Amino acid sequence: MTLYQIDFEPVGRRGECRDNESFLACARRLGVGIISLCGGKGTCHSCKVQILTGNVSQPTSNELEALSSQELKDGWRLACQTYPISDCKVSVPAESVTTPQRIQVEGLEITVHPEPLVRAYRLQLPPPSLSDPRADADRLLQVLNQQHQLHCSQVDIDALRILSPRLRSWNWQCQATVRNDEVIALSPWPRPQLGLAIDLGTTKIAGYLVDLSDGRTLAAKGIMNPQISYGEDIISRITSIIDSPAKSAKLQKLVVDGLNELANDLCTEVGAKTAEIVEAVVVGNTAMHHLFLSLPVRQLAYSPFVPAVSRALDTKARDLGLHMASGAYVHLLPNIAGFVGADHVAMLLATELWQAEGPTVAIDIGTNTEVSLVNSGEITTVSCASGPAFEGGHIKDGMRAASGAIERLRIANDSIQYQTIDDVPPVGICGSGIVDAMAQLYLVGIIDKHGRMKDNHPRLRTHKKQRQFVLVSEEERDGRSAIVITQQDVRELQLAKAAIRTGIQILLETKGCSEEEIKLVIIAGAFGTYINVSSAITIGMLPPLPLDRFRQVGNAAGIGAKLALVSGSKRAKAQKIASRVHYIELATAPNFMSTFSQASYIGRYRMRRGKREEIG
Amino acid sequence: MTLYQIDFEPVGRRGECRDNESFLACARRLGVGIISLCGGKGTCHSCKVQILTGNVSQPTSNELEALSSQELKDGWRLACQTYPISDCKVSVPAESVTTPQRIQVEGLEITVHPEPLVRAYRLQLPPPSLSDPRADADRLLQVLNQQHQLHCSQVDIDALRILSPRLRSWNWQCQATVRNDEVIALSPWPRPQLGLAIDLGTTKIAGYLVDLSDGRTLAAKGIMNPQISYGEDIISRITSIIDSPAKSAKLQKLVVDGLNELANDLCTEVGAKTAEIVEAVVVGNTAMHHLFLSLPVRQLAYSPFVPAVSRALDTKARDLGLHMASGAYVHLLPNIAGFVGADHVAMLLATELWQAEGPTVAIDIGTNTEVSLVNSGEITTVSCASGPAFEGGHIKDGMRAASGAIERLRIANDSIQYQTIDDVPPVGICGSGIVDAMAQLYLVGIIDKHGRMKDNHPRLRTHKKQRQFVLVSEEERDGRSAIVITQQDVRELQLAKAAIRTGIQILLETKGCSEEEIKLVIIAGAFGTYINVSSAITIGMLPPLPLDRFRQVGNAAGIGAKLALVSGSKRAKAQKIASRVHYIELATAPNFMSTFSQASYIGRYRMRRGKREEIG
Repeated sequence: MTLYQIDFEPVGRRGECRDNESFLACARRLGVGIISLCGGKGTCHSCKVQILTGNVSQPTSNELEALSSQELKDGWRLACQTYPISDCKVSVPAESVTTPQRIQVEGLEITVHPEPLVRAYRLQLPPPSLSDPRADADRLLQVLNQQHQLHCSQVDIDALRILSPRLRSWNWQCQATVRNDEVIALSPWPRPQLGLAIDLGTTKIAGYLVDLSDGRTLAAKGIMNPQISYGEDIISRITSIIDSPAKSAKLQKLVVDGLNELANDLCTEVGAKTAEIVEAVVVGNTAMHHLFLSLPVRQLAYSPFVPAVSRALDTKARDLGLHMASGAYVHLLPNIAGFVGADHVAMLLATELWQAEGPTVAIDIGTNTEVSLVNSGEITTVSCASGPAFEGGHIKDGMRAASGAIERLRIANDSIQYQTIDDVPPVGICGSGIVDAMAQLYLVGIIDKHGRMKDNHPRLRTHKKQRQFVLVSEEERDGRSAIVITQQDVRELQLAKAAIRTGIQILLETKGCSEEEIKLVIIAGAFGTYINVSSAITIGMLPPLPLDRFRQVGNAAGIGAKLALVSGSKRAKAQKIASRVHYIELATAPNFMSTFSQASYIGRYRMRRGKREEIG
Repeated sequence: MTLYQIDFEPVGRRGECRDNESFLACARRLGVGIISLCGGKGTCHSCKVQILTGNVSQPTSNELEALSSQELKDGWRLACQTYPISDCKVSVPAESVTTPQRIQVEGLEITVHPEPLVRAYRLQLPPPSLSDPRADADRLLQVLNQQHQLHCSQVDIDALRILSPRLRSWNWQCQATVRNDEVIALSPWPRPQLGLAIDLGTTKIAGYLVDLSDGRTLAAKGIMNPQISYGEDIISRITSIIDSPAKSAKLQKLVVDGLNELANDLCTEVGAKTAEIVEAVVVGNTAMHHLFLSLPVRQLAYSPFVPAVSRALDTKARDLGLHMASGAYVHLLPNIAGFVGADHVAMLLATELWQAEGPTVAIDIGTNTEVSLVNSGEITTVSCASGPAFEGGHIKDGMRAASGAIERLRIANDSIQYQTIDDVPPVGICGSGIVDAMAQLYLVGIIDKHGRMKDNHPRLRTHKKQRQFVLVSEEERDGRSAIVITQQDVRELQLAKAAIRTGIQILLETKGCSEEEIKLVIIAGAFGTYINVSSAITIGMLPPLPLDRFRQVGNAAGIGAKLALVSGSKRAKAQKIASRVHYIELATAPNFMSTFSQASYIGRYRMRRGKREEIG
């Protein structure tokens, strides 16, 4: 038996692999989740990986069936069928990964030259005496400015309040944390300079603890947005505030409490303290941005849907109730419009889309989906009300992408092959599973292009006067209720996917582009990372472009927040991006309704001037 | 009967005077308090005024006795003996004024070119539409910067929180209040731009409501410092915090609550609201400065007596709990040292002493007395622990300068002539009365130069084994307890006045000046305004210089705070003054103890190299 070194990218997980162990088995042993619906038999074709370097076993007949000769030439293989015969570097594409979303984002670490706005300086002060009775803060600023060629002129009031006793207990040695011309925190030397990047989603909140000195992510964690108790979607939260303005403070406190807990968990994980967090960057959609800052939201809900503020903001963490270093700031990246927030700016920043050559589409799929078309340096953006179906909302057996959710699915004759998150018995079906299900139902002819369910399959039944397709039966669940896709679920998904396709189409039309001209489609967001692009094309959600024109980039908004956290010039770039975006209000587009109605059809089709052109 | 227009300066009160009405009677009718101990008989010589313009009656025999020919030539007269025979302008010197201190300061209004750091701008915004959906704050900043050639880049977070609904209810017209690059408040147009200047004394707090557009004082008011319940002097307050650190927050809240009430009263007086106060300037001694900001004070109490911070500070009013406009700032003028605070800087600023020609001494008398010597552009400062005697503290029948306090006093044979504040029956004796009493007791030979009470006067008696001199007897008070000066009171005052004389002497010695060389002695502070300089010289508290070398300037610290409030260049000047001051720790001066012991003698004397030289 020989052992080889295998490097799984982009997650960066490395380990040894025996010569008689498949890449799939090795990956699983190492904790790299690769999707496998057929259990490693080579029949489901879901465990595609690309061999970047090294030599491997010859393709099996299953692989020859699953992969084109061009794909084989490019190194594409099925992980369950392939064995190493040397050290290898293997790329696991996003569509083959089963790892929970919040860990997913770690794979996309982007190296950036750290230029933090906050820096720490070591100081040794001469102690005061009757002949040198300078005030403590004045002494500190003078020494700091002299020794480090700075021009600091102020000390944050909360830092001032501890300065005198601490300097004495630290024997006049300390670390001063500086932001622009202000000393915002004091600590013994040395202490890490931590930053917190937050992607504040309507449903989920992702937090990243970052070392500001080198830009490394030290810990990452996702939590549910605790505001969900006031409404799953943002409009119901806004409505609840309009009806009772006092709720604004309650909602703000809910999310801030959640963030404090998240920050505390992240710090605990690496043995740090929240008082060592010296800067935070928060991105979110415009409504979440406003709810977080306790800004008024009524004007967001009514035409012309105007934010209270779009430009970037810096605010003291204490003014928001966040527990960080004494005088630390929270930076909020700029919003674009009422329904296109700082999270979209962060995504454009992370993907460096502004320098794309040729028409590029960036899609941030969520309860609200933002779509940007970038062409010759111009950025045009629309917002589509895609609704909660992709988060499992309004779907009978829908659930969020948590343990036990069916995330991949294939209909093989009468049996259903599926993959659940964490490989545990199925609990429900999440967004990517629903898209797969709809595509499979269409491909095997159970639903037609109008989305109507037929009566031609043993797993179809009528329950409470509604057609439903059984994914997991009561028997298969040991007597628990079945997991099904109902006619109504199909309708919900049709509305959701039509909204996105309409957004793409109207953007293209407005800028005089055709679908075929699109050079690249970037799909961001937690859900977008897990979606099977083929399935999404099959149901008419995405245009029928070659698969290699799609790139699933994970939580790019979180990455963008991290970039802005560690780099001042990235922050400036974000402001530039936001101010360059041309926003189009979708509902005002002349052919919005007709396009939407066309886009609700199921099947692979091109769209041209709002008309559907079916293809093979 | 003819009526003349009389203008009493510097209080600026004008009114008509009949040709048969004395200036004293007219002044009283108009509410200008002029001291008169003899009841207008021309015998006490305390109602001296100076006729600046106009013609008056010939001097009476009383006046010829009371005033030198030079004084008469200079227009000096007794107000009770003089009648107008044309319109007149009359100057009432500080030593002849009986008006309560807090109103006194109004007389010293200094005209300064207003250069406020905070300005209001009128805006008319285009309402948003689907074709112009700019965010509210971005729209406001863009219009503001365009129309007024500004470079504002931020809106205070609390102002942001009301911006959207207010702009809509004001129909897109508003007034934006700008400080540096920040919009700190929004209001309908037009609204006054009010400023608040605060002199935060250990015992008293003076507040001034100022119109920032023209620098006018709209209202002024004094209150007692509510921290007094934690100790009359600053050291007992500091000690109470060192013993129980939680008290720091309590003391801070006490003073902030007091200031909020004071600001509210001032606003109510002129029909304004505290939300219209867009900037505040606070001066106080270093300890009060620290207690107000909740800064640590332990290091102030122990050698080398170091402040937490000396340089000027700007802090959001909300961070201190002050009720002002949404994003308003409080500016704190710089401190000089542990016992020389921003109030002394404000006094130096108000008196423009830095440009004095020849040696000038500035004295700020209080529980702690600061003395500065200004000579050829050099400022040297000491701090003297003069104690609470001048505020009536530690004096048997002492009281603060409030209604019923004996503030002037003369011993005429067996009877006592006195003047009380508000001309009501006597209640006790305040600082200026105590200095008068000691001078009179010395002049009539009841105490000797060592401060020992003899037994040679019908009003002297022994009570509880202690000598006391009866100012107002039980009979004269209709059976209530007598008002007396005890031997112990004389000792207390000796310590207090010796501290001040020592400070002056050591300053002069350090800089190689003699007392005779002093060109000008400026006496500031509420008590210093009312003190009879002659009495102060008689008891050896002040050097025996000609009276015209003394100037009593009232609450110059408050005036300095007002100057810094309305003028950015005055603020810069204050920082320059503070950084130029050379502070001397009095207790470290080599001949401190011997000088102090010499300075406790009573009588008119010069001091040279720490030695007393008695004069006539």
